[in-house]
Amino acid sequence: MKTLKIIKIGGNIIDNSQALESFLSQFALLKGLKLLVHGGGKLATQMAQKMNIPVQMNEGRRITDSDTLDIITMVYAGKINKNIVAQLQANNCNAIGFSGADGNSIVSVKRPIQPIDYGFVGDVKQVNTNTLEVLLSNNITPVFCAITHDENGQLLNTNADTIASELAIGFTKQFKTELYYCFERNGVLRDITDDNSVVKNINTDTYESLVGDGIIADGMLPKLNNCFHAINNNVDKVCIGKPSMLFETNTLYTTIQK
Amino acid sequence: MKTLKIIKIGGNIIDNSQALESFLSQFALLKGLKLLVHGGGKLATQMAQKMNIPVQMNEGRRITDSDTLDIITMVYAGKINKNIVAQLQANNCNAIGFSGADGNSIVSVKRPIQPIDYGFVGDVKQVNTNTLEVLLSNNITPVFCAITHDENGQLLNTNADTIASELAIGFTKQFKTELYYCFERNGVLRDITDDNSVVKNINTDTYESLVGDGIIADGMLPKLNNCFHAINNNVDKVCIGKPSMLFETNTLYTTIQK
Repeated sequence: MKTLKIIKIGGNIIDNSQALESFLSQFALLKGLKLLVHGGGKLATQMAQKMNIPVQMNEGRRITDSDTLDIITMVYAGKINKNIVAQLQANNCNAIGFSGADGNSIVSVKRPIQPIDYGFVGDVKQVNTNTLEVLLSNNITPVFCAITHDENGQLLNTNADTIASELAIGFTKQFKTELYYCFERNGVLRDITDDNSVVKNINTDTYESLVGDGIIADGMLPKLNNCFHAINNNVDKVCIGKPSMLFETNTLYTTIQK
Repeated sequence: MKTLKIIKIGGNIIDNSQALESFLSQFALLKGLKLLVHGGGKLATQMAQKMNIPVQMNEGRRITDSDTLDIITMVYAGKINKNIVAQLQANNCNAIGFSGADGNSIVSVKRPIQPIDYGFVGDVKQVNTNTLEVLLSNNITPVFCAITHDENGQLLNTNADTIASELAIGFTKQFKTELYYCFERNGVLRDITDDNSVVKNINTDTYESLVGDGIIADGMLPKLNNCFHAINNNVDKVCIGKPSMLFETNTLYTTIQK
């Protein structure tokens, strides 16, 4: 069984054009089958401000009304996705940009409006890997933005971490899948001010005590939930850390275990 | 040799959501291999105005500075392209959105800055059909927006009519290709106020006299140039008319002949 690496990059790389260029040039050199998922960074918020569209948040999560969905689609699937694809081509990595609508690859359902109406936000229902497999077997790298569709013509805003974990799970029948969440730290840190205080391994038992101790909190909670969702659904390897975990040996990062 | 239909739709359909929905539901039912190319309509101009980015034109052609390229990428490759793909999926037509960067499918060169600097505008240099053929043979319909790349990481704004003709030419080794330019009229009209005054056939000889008589002028000149470029480069059939020419019999339209 071949190995497929699913790599998710977030805002800290997207928002910094030098960091993004550097990441993509290294990503292009990675051997083997790979798939990139990117978040949106601050650009969508900046765009909404330029257009005087109010940004509505609830507990750190964006409420996606119709105007906001348009902006997200333009920024994520347009500007960010196409620039990443063009840069990968410049690095001799043959890539194709994807939303979940393309190739009907990720079908989601609009989140129920109770208790909070998040608007055009989709929860993943189904991953269809057929088309993606055809591309991967032709040495083409899919690049996913965080937009899905409901099969009835409606695009939906979907969490990029979730897209990465669902894709990793979706490919487990065809590939040994590895899921890498890249962000600005070396992994889960015992002391958030010390980038060397990495918790190297987290399993279901130690996770609960880390949550209890407040070491895993806030935005790390949903990220870790996505990690455990993947590792408990036949994904072979799940790691959190800086992109260097992919390109260098002897780097610190967190590995999630069952 | 199988037949591939390359169909280009423009602003009049893109700007009217009902017309677009109706077109896409019929397009989805078209038998055989097909590829859609879409223009941008008025949305990019509206978006630029909302963001206070001045629209610069020269002889009816947009000058694409860096901010304008961002808007075009967002609107064409993001909002319009992804909504078309999602609507095709809703009509059971498995589609994937493309810019020229995706799959390295259309490589262009930035237009020389003399005599007029059009900014980030690309003239098509090369069409690579390999990836597209793989998709077509898997019953997937590519949907192209009018953006290309230079293989060095730069996206470029490219005329949608030109993209359609270059794709049609690019596929002539693998397929019998047919090129359909859909717009708001029944074809080239002798009398612009009479939609029944269609010139049914135009060849190189009659073209010159139609230009001389002022029947073909303005925006129709580059469109017709694209038509003759295609028919003179092994494209099997080139037609201009309303979308109904694709879906109905006994409709009026213009056919371009050598």
